[in-house]
Amino acid sequence: MSKNLKRLKTLLGEVADLRHIQSVLEWDQNVNMPPGGSEARGQQMATLGRIAHQKATSRQVGKLLEALKTEFPDPETDEGALVRVAARDYEKAARVPSSFVAKQAIVTTRAFEAWVEAKGKSDFSIFRPHLEKVVDLAQKYISFFPPADHPYDTLLDDYEPGMKTAEVQEIFNALRPRQVELIKAIISAKQVRDDFLYKKYNEQKVWEFGEAIITRFGYDWNCGRQDKAPHPFQTTFSVNDTRITNRFEENNPLATLFSAMHEAGHAMYEQGSNPAYERTPLAGGVSLAVHESQSRLWENLVGRSLPFWEYFFPKLKKAFPSKLEGVKLKQFYKAINKVQPSLIRVNADEATYNLHVMLRLELEIGMIEGKIAVKDLPEIWNAKMEEYLGVVPPNDAQGVLQDVHWSSGLMGYFSTYALGNLVSAQLWQKINEDIGDLEDRIRNGSFEALLAWLREKVHIHSRKYDPQELVQRVTGSKINADPYIRYLTEKYSAIYEL
Amino acid sequence: MSKNLKRLKTLLGEVADLRHIQSVLEWDQNVNMPPGGSEARGQQMATLGRIAHQKATSRQVGKLLEALKTEFPDPETDEGALVRVAARDYEKAARVPSSFVAKQAIVTTRAFEAWVEAKGKSDFSIFRPHLEKVVDLAQKYISFFPPADHPYDTLLDDYEPGMKTAEVQEIFNALRPRQVELIKAIISAKQVRDDFLYKKYNEQKVWEFGEAIITRFGYDWNCGRQDKAPHPFQTTFSVNDTRITNRFEENNPLATLFSAMHEAGHAMYEQGSNPAYERTPLAGGVSLAVHESQSRLWENLVGRSLPFWEYFFPKLKKAFPSKLEGVKLKQFYKAINKVQPSLIRVNADEATYNLHVMLRLELEIGMIEGKIAVKDLPEIWNAKMEEYLGVVPPNDAQGVLQDVHWSSGLMGYFSTYALGNLVSAQLWQKINEDIGDLEDRIRNGSFEALLAWLREKVHIHSRKYDPQELVQRVTGSKINADPYIRYLTEKYSAIYEL
Repeated sequence: MSKNLKRLKTLLGEVADLRHIQSVLEWDQNVNMPPGGSEARGQQMATLGRIAHQKATSRQVGKLLEALKTEFPDPETDEGALVRVAARDYEKAARVPSSFVAKQAIVTTRAFEAWVEAKGKSDFSIFRPHLEKVVDLAQKYISFFPPADHPYDTLLDDYEPGMKTAEVQEIFNALRPRQVELIKAIISAKQVRDDFLYKKYNEQKVWEFGEAIITRFGYDWNCGRQDKAPHPFQTTFSVNDTRITNRFEENNPLATLFSAMHEAGHAMYEQGSNPAYERTPLAGGVSLAVHESQSRLWENLVGRSLPFWEYFFPKLKKAFPSKLEGVKLKQFYKAINKVQPSLIRVNADEATYNLHVMLRLELEIGMIEGKIAVKDLPEIWNAKMEEYLGVVPPNDAQGVLQDVHWSSGLMGYFSTYALGNLVSAQLWQKINEDIGDLEDRIRNGSFEALLAWLREKVHIHSRKYDPQELVQRVTGSKINADPYIRYLTEKYSAIYEL
Repeated sequence: MSKNLKRLKTLLGEVADLRHIQSVLEWDQNVNMPPGGSEARGQQMATLGRIAHQKATSRQVGKLLEALKTEFPDPETDEGALVRVAARDYEKAARVPSSFVAKQAIVTTRAFEAWVEAKGKSDFSIFRPHLEKVVDLAQKYISFFPPADHPYDTLLDDYEPGMKTAEVQEIFNALRPRQVELIKAIISAKQVRDDFLYKKYNEQKVWEFGEAIITRFGYDWNCGRQDKAPHPFQTTFSVNDTRITNRFEENNPLATLFSAMHEAGHAMYEQGSNPAYERTPLAGGVSLAVHESQSRLWENLVGRSLPFWEYFFPKLKKAFPSKLEGVKLKQFYKAINKVQPSLIRVNADEATYNLHVMLRLELEIGMIEGKIAVKDLPEIWNAKMEEYLGVVPPNDAQGVLQDVHWSSGLMGYFSTYALGNLVSAQLWQKINEDIGDLEDRIRNGSFEALLAWLREKVHIHSRKYDPQELVQRVTGSKINADPYIRYLTEKYSAIYEL
C-alpha cells in the first residue's frame, strides 16, 4: 500500500474511533444517563469533539491529502474515492475552529436536556433560549464557509452532499401540489375504520412483535440491539455494532412496530456497509436521503404493504386476539394506511408526511435568513400546520417541540426525510423490475432477496459514490418525485377507491 | 487563581474527561454491547487510551507541575494536594509509553470477550492465551519502573498508593492464622440452617428489594442507575453519574441484595466526593482498600447485622411470604452469616472471604515472579482451594475463571479487597464511638447519620490524603487487622455460640 495512504488511514482511523465514541456517549445520553450526568457529559462531549476535530483537521492530514490526490486521481477506485471523500470532509472541517465545535457540544448537550424537560411539560419557553443559541451557532457555522447560492446550502450540504436548497425547493414545489391534490381527493372519499389500532395493546408484546419482524427482515442482533429512548433513532459504533432505539406510546401502540422497521432499515444499511471501509471516511451511509430511503422502504414500501400483512396479520391476530377480533386483513391494511392530516411527523401517514417536512424546511430557512424569530416559532408552526394540513396542535409538545433535531443542533436535516421517501420509491420500482416475484416473496415472509439486492446495489457502496450519483447508477435517474407520486396515487386510489 | 494552576486544571480536566469516557465505553461493553461490537470497541479503547495517556504525560503538564510544586508546597491545602497527587500520577504515567497503553487496551478487550466465553463454557483453554498476554503485559509494565523491593510493589501501588507487598504480606500473615483458627472453631460448632435462602425467589422482586434497600441507604438515583452485567461493579462518569451493576443467580438469589449494598457502598463514596475536585486528579475515591471499606461496611457491617434485619426482615417476609414462611429473624440472621468454606469469592462469608483473596495474591505474585505458569493455574488454584478452604471447584467457571479482573488487565488489585475489610472494621469502631445510638438508628431503618459521618470523615476528602494517612486521621491508626478480627470473633461467637 502507498506509504502516504497507510499513514492517512492510521490518522483517519483514529478520527473514526473518536466519532464512534461520540456516538456511544450520545446513545448513552438518550438511553441510559441519569439526569445528574448531563453537565459532565456536556464537557466530555466537548473535549472529545475538540480532539476529534483537531485530529481531523491536522496539517498532517491536509498535506497527505494533497499528495494523495495526485497519487490516486481515479474516483472509480476505492483509493481514489477514499481520497476524494476524505479531502472533502477535511476541507469542510478545517473551516470550522475547534473552539466552535467544543462550544456547540456544550450548547447542544444543554439544549437536549432542556428539550426533554420542555417537551415533558409542553412549555416552549424552557427550550426557547437554547434554540436561540442553536440558531446563532448555525449562522456562525455558515459564516465559516464561502458564500453559497443560499446560506442554507451550507447546512444542507452536510447531510446531503452536493444538494442545493434551490434543487430541493424545486423538487418540493413540484411535489407539493400533487400531494395536496391527492390528499384532497382522499379526504373527500369515504374514511376507513381504524379504532382497533388504538386499543390498549400490551407494551411488551408489541415490542417483541416488532423485534420478530425486524429479525425476519435480517437485522443482525449479533451486531445490534434495540432500546427504549424518548425518540426512535439509529446509531453506529462500527459496522458490527449498529443499534436502534424505539418507544411505546400508549395512545398509538402499534407505531412501535413501524418505528422498529424504520430504524432497522437504517441499521441494516449500516450493517451492509463494506467492512473493508471500516475506520475510513468511506464507511457507513452516504447521505441522509439515501439513509432515509432505506428506512422508509422497509417501513412503508414493505411494512405498510398488503403482501407484508398477508404474512404477518395472522400472527398479529394471534398475539392480540381480543384487540383484533373480527378485524379482516383488508380492514387492517386500510387502517394502517389511513390518511388523516395529523400533528406528529413521525406518526404521519405516507400521503401527508412530506408536508410536515416542507413546513420544517420553511421554518429553518426562515430562521437562518433571520426572517423568523425563535420566539415566534410556536405561533408560526401552528399557523402553517393549519394552512398545510388543516390541524392545529393543542400544545407545543405535539407541535414545535415534537422533534429532537434542533435540540441536537441538527439544522439542514429535515428535507432529507422527504427526499428519502422519493428515493425509496425510485428504488422500489427498480427492485420490482429485478425481482419479478418480490410480492410473492414478501407474502411468504421471505426478505432475503430484497435485502441481498439492497446490500449489493446500495449498502456495499457505503460513501464511495455521491448520493445523486448512486441513485443515478442504481435507478437510472437522479432524485425525482415521479415514482413516489405514482406509488402514492396507485396505492391510495385502491384503498380509497378514488 | 495561579495562571499555572488554571492551565494545569484545563489540561488535566481534558484527561479526566477522557478517563470518564473510557469508563462509559467499558460500562457499555459490560452492560449493553452486542458481541459483534468487540473488535471495534477494542480499537476505540486503544485510541482513547493512547490520547488520554499522551495528554496526561505531555511535556507541558510536566513543566507546569515543576513550577507548581514550588508555588504550592503545602500539602494541607487543596492546591498543594492537587499538585502532589497530579505530580505522582504524572510521574508514573510518563514512564509508560503510549504504544504500550494502546496495546494493553486491545489485549484486554479481547481477553474480556474470551473470558466471558470461557466462563460460559467453563473452559480455561479459551482464556489461557489471553491471560498469558495479560501477564506478559504486567511484567512489561513493571519493567518501565525503577526496581522496587519486590516487582509486585509496582502493580500494587497503582491501586493502593504507598503500600508495599511486604506490608500486605505481614498484615495477611498476622491475619491468616487467626482467621483460620476462627473458621476451625466455627466448623466444629453446630451448623446453622439456611435452606430457605436457596428457594426459587422471583428475580424481579429481589432486584426491586435490593433497590429499595440502597434507596434507603441514600444512593442517589438522580446521579446513578443499576443494570445487569455478568459481574457486579461500580463505575464513575462524574460525581453526578456513578452507576452500579448487579446480577441474579438462580442458585443464590439473595446474593443480589448484598451485591446491591456492596456496589452502592462504592457508589455513595463516589457520590460524596468533593464536587470542587471534579475534573481534577483529586476527584473520586483515594484507593481500592478505602473504596472497599465503604462497600463492605454497607454490605457487611450494616447489611449483615441483626439491627439491619430487624428493620428489613419483616419487609422481606412480606415480599416473599411463601419462601420465608415460619422463618424467624434470628434464623434468617444466622443463615445469611453462615460460615461455610465455598468456591466463589464474591459470595463468600465474612469469615472465609479473606482467604480467597490471599490465594489470588499468592497466584499473582507467583505469575509476576515467573514461578507460576498460566497453563498450571487451574491446577494450582484447585490445590490451594483445597488447602485453604477444604473445597475443590468442580469446574473452572467456579474456580479460576470466576473473577473478571485478570481479563481486564487488573493485576495487583485483589489484596485491596481484604485490606478494605480491615478498614471497614476500623471505621465501624470509630463510628460507634461517635454515633452512640447507631444500632438503634439502623434498627429503625435510618441511615442518614451514618452516611453523613462517612461523607464528612471519608468521602469529602476524595484523593486529598493518601490512604494510610486518611485511615490514620479518621481512626487514629494505620491499616491493621485487630478491629476486624475482634469484630469477626464477637459476631461469630454469638452466632455459633463458641
